[in-house]
Amino acid sequence: MDTSFASSSPTPLLAVDRQPGYWFVRLNRPEKRNALSDELVAGLAEVCEHVAADLEARALVLSGAGGHFCAGADFGRFLELMSTTPGQADDPIAVYNRQFGAMLERIAALPVATVAVVTGSAMGGGCGLAAACDRVIAADDAKFAMPEVTLGVAPAQIAPFVVRRAGARRARWLMLGGARLAAAEAQAAGLADVVVPVTELRGALGTDLLRLGLAEPTALRATKRIVGRTLEDPLPVALDAAAREFAGLLRHGAAREGIVASRERRAPSWQPPPPRLPEFP
Amino acid sequence: MDTSFASSSPTPLLAVDRQPGYWFVRLNRPEKRNALSDELVAGLAEVCEHVAADLEARALVLSGAGGHFCAGADFGRFLELMSTTPGQADDPIAVYNRQFGAMLERIAALPVATVAVVTGSAMGGGCGLAAACDRVIAADDAKFAMPEVTLGVAPAQIAPFVVRRAGARRARWLMLGGARLAAAEAQAAGLADVVVPVTELRGALGTDLLRLGLAEPTALRATKRIVGRTLEDPLPVALDAAAREFAGLLRHGAAREGIVASRERRAPSWQPPPPRLPEFP
Amino acid sequence: MDTSFASSSPTPLLAVDRQPGYWFVRLNRPEKRNALSDELVAGLAEVCEHVAADLEARALVLSGAGGHFCAGADFGRFLELMSTTPGQADDPIAVYNRQFGAMLERIAALPVATVAVVTGSAMGGGCGLAAACDRVIAADDAKFAMPEVTLGVAPAQIAPFVVRRAGARRARWLMLGGARLAAAEAQAAGLADVVVPVTELRGALGTDLLRLGLAEPTALRATKRIVGRTLEDPLPVALDAAAREFAGLLRHGAAREGIVASRERRAPSWQPPPPRLPEFP
Repeated sequence: MDTSFASSSPTPLLAVDRQPGYWFVRLNRPEKRNALSDELVAGLAEVCEHVAADLEARALVLSGAGGHFCAGADFGRFLELMSTTPGQADDPIAVYNRQFGAMLERIAALPVATVAVVTGSAMGGGCGLAAACDRVIAADDAKFAMPEVTLGVAPAQIAPFVVRRAGARRARWLMLGGARLAAAEAQAAGLADVVVPVTELRGALGTDLLRLGLAEPTALRATKRIVGRTLEDPLPVALDAAAREFAGLLRHGAAREGIVASRERRAPSWQPPPPRLPEFP
Repeated sequence: MDTSFASSSPTPLLAVDRQPGYWFVRLNRPEKRNALSDELVAGLAEVCEHVAADLEARALVLSGAGGHFCAGADFGRFLELMSTTPGQADDPIAVYNRQFGAMLERIAALPVATVAVVTGSAMGGGCGLAAACDRVIAADDAKFAMPEVTLGVAPAQIAPFVVRRAGARRARWLMLGGARLAAAEAQAAGLADVVVPVTELRGALGTDLLRLGLAEPTALRATKRIVGRTLEDPLPVALDAAAREFAGLLRHGAAREGIVASRERRAPSWQPPPPRLPEFP
Repeated sequence: MDTSFASSSPTPLLAVDRQPGYWFVRLNRPEKRNALSDELVAGLAEVCEHVAADLEARALVLSGAGGHFCAGADFGRFLELMSTTPGQADDPIAVYNRQFGAMLERIAALPVATVAVVTGSAMGGGCGLAAACDRVIAADDAKFAMPEVTLGVAPAQIAPFVVRRAGARRARWLMLGGARLAAAEAQAAGLADVVVPVTELRGALGTDLLRLGLAEPTALRATKRIVGRTLEDPLPVALDAAAREFAGLLRHGAAREGIVASRERRAPSWQPPPPRLPEFP
């Protein structure tokens, strides 16, 4: 862990390693299997602001310390919340739950690529945290679960992110049955993209990050925006916006360098040095 | 078939077996391969009302008597309809067709899990009836078909339900080519979720229903609503609604029992007895 | 190539072979690997008008002359465009880019089935051209690539079409990493539907076209419209429109012939002769 970037970490519950082009963020509450306390959720939201402001960043890599990715919500906190009184306008339980969803929204809206490296368990909210990322690399002994309905609650904030990955039909079925999935099953359901032995997690991540390093960062951000709009806008509106993005990129100096580098069969000038990868788990 | 619940059956064309937590509904027009007469469609819509009103229900299981799931529309009825005269406001053919779609909408909107067990043929409208369910368990010799275009008609009301399962690209291609699919092909296309030998249908269904029995029924209903909204609402709106659902569940007594049962490693109090499963076919 | 239909070709950059029920269109700029010049894009858009006007047409088949499907945009044209000056209202780069997207929209909106036969490379815009089709049949040594971000530009106009095929998650990841995919990888990602050795391309295409030939052409067009609306309209609105389409088809003479032919176990009267298939590559 590079201590020179320790100042980027808004809470000791997160270990943040900023490198040129890449951010490595580790949930660091191993004694609770990285269960999502209010402070941890707020810390993740704050890290997103730092990453979004780093115009050289290509990727954010999320992982969990101590062998597990994330155990999801704190049940102790649930019991505590049950004894609160709902206000006239707001129920503190709804506010609590929505804040977690707002953090997932920020991750999903990040202008850079997001990668979750899942070891051990990704339970409930942890499953949603992984699902909000663009890429999920899982250890072959990792476990994904959405046991909410069997506890009398619901996979509320994570549902849209799981639906985007697994599709509504599969996501609904998994949620209604309180699914517990081995890594291979999670991959078949679209919740994991790559499944490898723990010893190969670094290699798989390294391959992905080197590939992302070839991307010109302004173009990478434009591409994330363009894909985001295809989900929200009617087709002609999305295409109009994409044409403006395209014009902006071509008038930006980088496109000329990219085309020339391609013709000269050399790496483009913007490629960052290979990152120092964390150890897993 | 449990005769004590026979009163729930709105027509002899449906055999309805209501058990604690589960409804088993069998299309019962075997001499016509369970083709969808107007009465059968109306009966299915009415059963949906009963199921929706049963707050203990976890699942509705649909199957077909006599070896086939459902042959789709009645061609005799098509020929009859061709000789009607369209009104100024309404065409009786459109009204007929739309009523079938309204029944599919009710099945898709049910607040409980829906499972189709497909033996023999699921043709046209029968393919759509299965597609409208959350889960399709098919016998390995089952056949799915959408031959409409080869007959000069279109898979009109079933299209959205098939698209939701297979995706627009695959659904379109299957429909344009009047597809006839073996069970394994239907599974590859997303039209079936599980394919097993006929002798293992009961086992596969039983496993699914036991899993659904672990769900607290209020939480199961909330989860279906939450997933439904992710398809209709913008992300922040869906997350706001989900937070309110979550608060409602936590203030409902069941969540406390669920968390306590989980900590005590015992089954929660709401689990129904294992259902008596029908024979297939 | 049937010269009797040469008049349908709006530019020598396209070889057009119109047969009863089928249109075969080949990109014909082999010295540039069929890179998409302005003239080629305009020609494709014009061919779409002819195909849409042919009420007997079931399918348009797109392929590339000289071994490659399509190399995408012309980099020389990009460099030329960089030296233009943006107007107050319009940037000529955005106009150029959007015209390509408008052509893809026309292909995607065609009232007949669209099939891309991909040999060699489908790069960038060429990858999008294939993705806009209903069906992609690829040679097993074909390559698909979206290298835009590595050149400092973005897969702007093709993004929605790639997203529709691969899903947003996979499409985004491929685009952010400047993906280069072998045919089997493209198939796994949803960018190709069928992958066969080059020598079997004709056979695979022939099977598809014979199947489409069984479709009554009015019913085929209605089915494409119905599926299109499921993507754009709320469910009840889409079902209302589908019911009207269904009534129109049943009042159209062809449905009676279709049902009678089916009962008599003979081919319906509308089936065109088997097409003469092009050679690949």
